[in-house]
Amino acid sequence: MLSKAELYRIVFNSDTKQGRQFDIILLWCILFSVFIAIVDSVPNLPPTLHTILYILEWLITIVFTIEYLLRVYISHNTVRYVFSFWGAVDLLSILPTYLSLFVWGTNYLLVVRILRLLRVFRILKLANFNAESIVLMKALKASMHKITIFLFAVMTINILLGTVMYVVEGGRNGFTSIPQSIYWAIITITTVGYGDIVPRTNLGKFISSIAMIVGYAIIAIPTGIVSVEMSKAADSAQKKCPECSVGNDIHANFCSHCGTALQ
Amino acid sequence: MLSKAELYRIVFNSDTKQGRQFDIILLWCILFSVFIAIVDSVPNLPPTLHTILYILEWLITIVFTIEYLLRVYISHNTVRYVFSFWGAVDLLSILPTYLSLFVWGTNYLLVVRILRLLRVFRILKLANFNAESIVLMKALKASMHKITIFLFAVMTINILLGTVMYVVEGGRNGFTSIPQSIYWAIITITTVGYGDIVPRTNLGKFISSIAMIVGYAIIAIPTGIVSVEMSKAADSAQKKCPECSVGNDIHANFCSHCGTALQ
Amino acid sequence: MLSKAELYRIVFNSDTKQGRQFDIILLWCILFSVFIAIVDSVPNLPPTLHTILYILEWLITIVFTIEYLLRVYISHNTVRYVFSFWGAVDLLSILPTYLSLFVWGTNYLLVVRILRLLRVFRILKLANFNAESIVLMKALKASMHKITIFLFAVMTINILLGTVMYVVEGGRNGFTSIPQSIYWAIITITTVGYGDIVPRTNLGKFISSIAMIVGYAIIAIPTGIVSVEMSKAADSAQKKCPECSVGNDIHANFCSHCGTALQ
Amino acid sequence: MLSKAELYRIVFNSDTKQGRQFDIILLWCILFSVFIAIVDSVPNLPPTLHTILYILEWLITIVFTIEYLLRVYISHNTVRYVFSFWGAVDLLSILPTYLSLFVWGTNYLLVVRILRLLRVFRILKLANFNAESIVLMKALKASMHKITIFLFAVMTINILLGTVMYVVEGGRNGFTSIPQSIYWAIITITTVGYGDIVPRTNLGKFISSIAMIVGYAIIAIPTGIVSVEMSKAADSAQKKCPECSVGNDIHANFCSHCGTALQ
Repeated sequence: MLSKAELYRIVFNSDTKQGRQFDIILLWCILFSVFIAIVDSVPNLPPTLHTILYILEWLITIVFTIEYLLRVYISHNTVRYVFSFWGAVDLLSILPTYLSLFVWGTNYLLVVRILRLLRVFRILKLANFNAESIVLMKALKASMHKITIFLFAVMTINILLGTVMYVVEGGRNGFTSIPQSIYWAIITITTVGYGDIVPRTNLGKFISSIAMIVGYAIIAIPTGIVSVEMSKAADSAQKKCPECSVGNDIHANFCSHCGTALQ
Repeated sequence: MLSKAELYRIVFNSDTKQGRQFDIILLWCILFSVFIAIVDSVPNLPPTLHTILYILEWLITIVFTIEYLLRVYISHNTVRYVFSFWGAVDLLSILPTYLSLFVWGTNYLLVVRILRLLRVFRILKLANFNAESIVLMKALKASMHKITIFLFAVMTINILLGTVMYVVEGGRNGFTSIPQSIYWAIITITTVGYGDIVPRTNLGKFISSIAMIVGYAIIAIPTGIVSVEMSKAADSAQKKCPECSVGNDIHANFCSHCGTALQ
Repeated sequence: MLSKAELYRIVFNSDTKQGRQFDIILLWCILFSVFIAIVDSVPNLPPTLHTILYILEWLITIVFTIEYLLRVYISHNTVRYVFSFWGAVDLLSILPTYLSLFVWGTNYLLVVRILRLLRVFRILKLANFNAESIVLMKALKASMHKITIFLFAVMTINILLGTVMYVVEGGRNGFTSIPQSIYWAIITITTVGYGDIVPRTNLGKFISSIAMIVGYAIIAIPTGIVSVEMSKAADSAQKKCPECSVGNDIHANFCSHCGTALQ
Repeated sequence: MLSKAELYRIVFNSDTKQGRQFDIILLWCILFSVFIAIVDSVPNLPPTLHTILYILEWLITIVFTIEYLLRVYISHNTVRYVFSFWGAVDLLSILPTYLSLFVWGTNYLLVVRILRLLRVFRILKLANFNAESIVLMKALKASMHKITIFLFAVMTINILLGTVMYVVEGGRNGFTSIPQSIYWAIITITTVGYGDIVPRTNLGKFISSIAMIVGYAIIAIPTGIVSVEMSKAADSAQKKCPECSVGNDIHANFCSHCGTALQ
């Protein structure tokens, strides 16, 4: 029988063989349960398949419930775990199935069930993918401020463009209100272009042509921002040689260019 | 009672606590008034809501009018303020509501009302967002020249492509004139792709396939331009160490790499 | 009366005041003539406007003819000019109007008329826009080889994807032949997405989902290529200080960082 | 008569004149045979053309068969060649034509026939395009890990978004199941935007607007990743001068900046 400390190491860490096995089993359970929820939504499934999916969903929910109770039992600070982000996600991934026993028309519970997918990121976080995603995260955090300004400017353009098109198209051709026109503006500026709402007047077409070209040019801005930050993050993840200032791998002991010993 | 100089500091600057409070209140008033204008355009609103929105719009307009008169009164050089860019925007954000009393069919005044949104940028400019947006602006200004050449080249491609497709599709399938064909070319090259005008002839499909691939490749150009300028702007916002030429934060007093004192 | 050498300087160069004036007049003539051709294609124009456009087109053609004859007369090597790229473009910009006197159904001559637009680039080339566009051109030339490999790989993906979808959709739903399916693949991979051909089978939708995500990821490649080459081109357009190896403006005489005199 | 070693050099290498000629002939045969397969799929071709295409396909298949047998015969290690990647591709490019003699309804064999196109890459690999594509490949391999994390995050967003929209649109308007909704989410996030499935409810439109703007911002991430890796790959393909640390061409013997001899 495993002690509480040993269990903790297996369940919460991944630095032991058993810990990694636990993670991998959990990973597949999560992906499988999300797959079940997705397939279950397809209409006109044969009743037999429906029944099988129902049973599988309950089996996985029981596994997750045991896992949740285990986590609650072995965590050093139970209250902190329960109210932590991952504690909440763990609880939310089992609740919908139990609730579906009592509540009818539980369609919206589906979204909560799919939230299980988030748990995959905890497992990845524990695993080796860490180093790479830290560089990614660092670059994203550094560019968050500039991206916010950029998105605010884009929203302003969308609101102004939507209002202008609402007035130009005169509330017709799908531009029935400013919110609808803003919806069209977002579709256009982001180059999604569904085509469910399109300008019909010549002036409207002219204005949207300009908007498209502007949208085409400004997509370069977030790309530039992220590229620069990613380049910085990649640089700072290097050891700079004190002699020749060539960047070396973070784990290097000697400079790859001049052989100077690195601290 | 506040003196004229104290009022000036609150209204025009944001370096005092009251100045910042004034800015935040103004910010929410602007966003709220834009929200009202947007909601007001939705057709089939209940008459009660319409009346409430009408009253709210008048309340906010009165607030903005008081603010405008205050700005006119306290500014050191009244004439210069009134004819400045922000002075004009401030006036334009109150005019439409008053004009709507005298003019009927004031749909196009909506655009002027939405221009209020621009005032948000003055508030942001005064606030802390400054440093980030300066780097952004610097990079954009530096790349403006190259972007202009690029956009000119793209417009030439669009005009040539539009003319070719007008001739190829023979004025049918939506390609009814060269301006319409240019509108289609812009939709295609910018990858928006509404699908309201699509080629029907085989030659037309072949030519647009090539145009799409070209458009796909040239979107890389503005991105490259902005990335390089953004990288330069980020570099020049750093203090270079005279000893080891490592870039340091603009506010650093000592080099993060070798400890040399920076001017 | 101007000598042949003086005329040459005005017409072919732009280093004199008269040369620049000549260029600017020519620029506006070109843009105006292209504008006429575009407007002329709009159906249901009033007959009077049509007549005016017809007369204006002839006036501009006469101006261009005089300019062409002048260039032929004053160029040092007439044969070389006539058979040069720009000589051919100059001739092609006047031919269609004369040909339209003899040939009926001259719709396709429109494309040749629009080719006049290319002449704008000669004028820009002579003018100050030069320095910027040289950096752009240098970066594009350097990345041409990599972009070619990339486009070849994209075309291979499109052909394979088109064939797979033709087989999967069974020649129905718009996927009536492999060329049609390749046309759809190009629309999808380039993210244009007209929506005139869309998969209807579940397997088809699944395959196109994967294709879209792949297309989304690979658009990063040309951008990366151009960014790097543009960065290199911008670097090599700098003077590097021999002391501190900081990059300086190409026209700088002293290093902006340490003050060392630059050659 | 050529010896086995000489034949090997011609067929497998491209460092002799005959080897290059062999490659070029093979390249055109491949492209031509793919072209035949594509044209052959067009419905309502005249029967004569169909017969000609059929004969040409057999001719090329015979050429490829001879080439395959030659490769098997001359390769140093026959078993290794036959079971190698290129050996399998070579076999797969001749099999479909022979199989079509025995099997009816061989539409799916078309895909195998088109796989011949892959053989072009072997020829390019042997030829001079090598240096460029090595830099490309190196950058892609280095970014593969980060791109995988990114694509995984994008798929999570698509699954969550699809589920939310399935619940919001209530299984109507094309959002008939979660897989369908995920298909829509992918179309939207990748900015393809067919428009075959579009949200009809106001909440649905609001959520997709946010999704589009998010998609617009996150497309910057893979671009940033690839740009940085490509920049690193381009750097490491340079020789750094030990004196002034300026990067030189990999084949340079002396530093372009200070003239120091490079190893």
